[in-house]
Amino acid sequence: MPNSKQYTVVVMANFEETQRIWCEADAVCFDVDSTVCTDEAIDELANYCGVGRQVAECTKAAMGGAMTFRRALTQRLNIIRPTRDQLANFMIDHPPNLTPGVRELVQLLQSRNVPIYLVSGGFQSVIERAAEELEIPSSHIHANKLRFFMDGEYAGFDETQPTSESGGKAAVIKRLKDKCGYKKLVMIGDGATDLEACPPADAFIGFGGNVIREKVQSKAKWYVTDFEELISTLENGAAQEIDH
Amino acid sequence: MPNSKQYTVVVMANFEETQRIWCEADAVCFDVDSTVCTDEAIDELANYCGVGRQVAECTKAAMGGAMTFRRALTQRLNIIRPTRDQLANFMIDHPPNLTPGVRELVQLLQSRNVPIYLVSGGFQSVIERAAEELEIPSSHIHANKLRFFMDGEYAGFDETQPTSESGGKAAVIKRLKDKCGYKKLVMIGDGATDLEACPPADAFIGFGGNVIREKVQSKAKWYVTDFEELISTLENGAAQEIDH
Repeated sequence: MPNSKQYTVVVMANFEETQRIWCEADAVCFDVDSTVCTDEAIDELANYCGVGRQVAECTKAAMGGAMTFRRALTQRLNIIRPTRDQLANFMIDHPPNLTPGVRELVQLLQSRNVPIYLVSGGFQSVIERAAEELEIPSSHIHANKLRFFMDGEYAGFDETQPTSESGGKAAVIKRLKDKCGYKKLVMIGDGATDLEACPPADAFIGFGGNVIREKVQSKAKWYVTDFEELISTLENGAAQEIDH
Repeated sequence: MPNSKQYTVVVMANFEETQRIWCEADAVCFDVDSTVCTDEAIDELANYCGVGRQVAECTKAAMGGAMTFRRALTQRLNIIRPTRDQLANFMIDHPPNLTPGVRELVQLLQSRNVPIYLVSGGFQSVIERAAEELEIPSSHIHANKLRFFMDGEYAGFDETQPTSESGGKAAVIKRLKDKCGYKKLVMIGDGATDLEACPPADAFIGFGGNVIREKVQSKAKWYVTDFEELISTLENGAAQEIDH
């Protein structure tokens, strides 16, 4: 079956190419919900505000249909309508749950002076907590920003953030590449929006350590379920580079 | 000069009609800046934030040209970009300066069970302070609402508020009339946007106690420079009604 064999070769090449780019990455973008952190902040916030079931139903409907990211976000936030106090208390009661291995992976990249970005459809203020723990500067967070009125009532989200739109992660990555000239930018994430950010990302690594999304698993050239695999590849790749 | 005489008669009739409606008003809408209060909150806030001159220049340019209300508001707020803390401190340092006589006028209307509304292109949270002093419920304030991000940075204003648009006061008054069935709603204010709210307001009274705007003075059927005139007309008008 020559066709089948050829197909395998192509997949292997892509996998190797992805590994090579990973070892030489000049920037790494991480998704946050279900990647850097074990849970989905919007679902946790919905639970906290007592509307977990309604938001879960809305998420399900959004995933099944052809709803834009913005519309799905608007609908879910209009159910939650978190006040400033609710969000502040949520953040106190829910410190970030970092995925095992992410701290070590980030430290390894930092030791190699690889800039790290968090690119997320979640919320800036929630992600800042995780970024702080990982010593990622808040200027490297690209996420959605909730707005509040003076009395603390929910007042929508910043619609100028690219991450509030479908294709937003790709837009952020394109902007980063244009601005900083990255040539080997790697995107890591669990979801379809992460996969779709490559290109413009030079490589995509699917992450299934918290939740496995079949579409992403089947389409990713490299799919890992443990950050340890990325760490050891980086260390071995780096070792190989020294060997050469 | 019969034409001139006829003209005078029409003006007098309009003036008398306005006075009659005033004495029988079933709702009164007040403008806030330079009417209920002696100053313009946006100018005071700009001064407080150290950009008074720039905002004054912007106001001047907006008044001269054909700029929409929203555009002018956006531009001025983009200069000020007040943080949540700045606005909170501004409100502490600048309690409302009520125009002399407004307290007595409001109390008189309240004693007659006439509902009072504050309809303003200014800011809800600032106006709430004046409303509190005048015992006007905050649900009777129609004004613009500033938004902030979680970290307190300026995040625009609520663009769904009719008062953020040209013709916004007219829109609020139409809505009030539709909703509550007012038949003799009086608008009182110093500015062109107040004048333009009649109709749908059933009568307009120009107020020049803080600043006299010539266009408004020349077009208003009834123009007063002291709330005392409105109080005494109301008291005398009421007395006449009893006499009849």
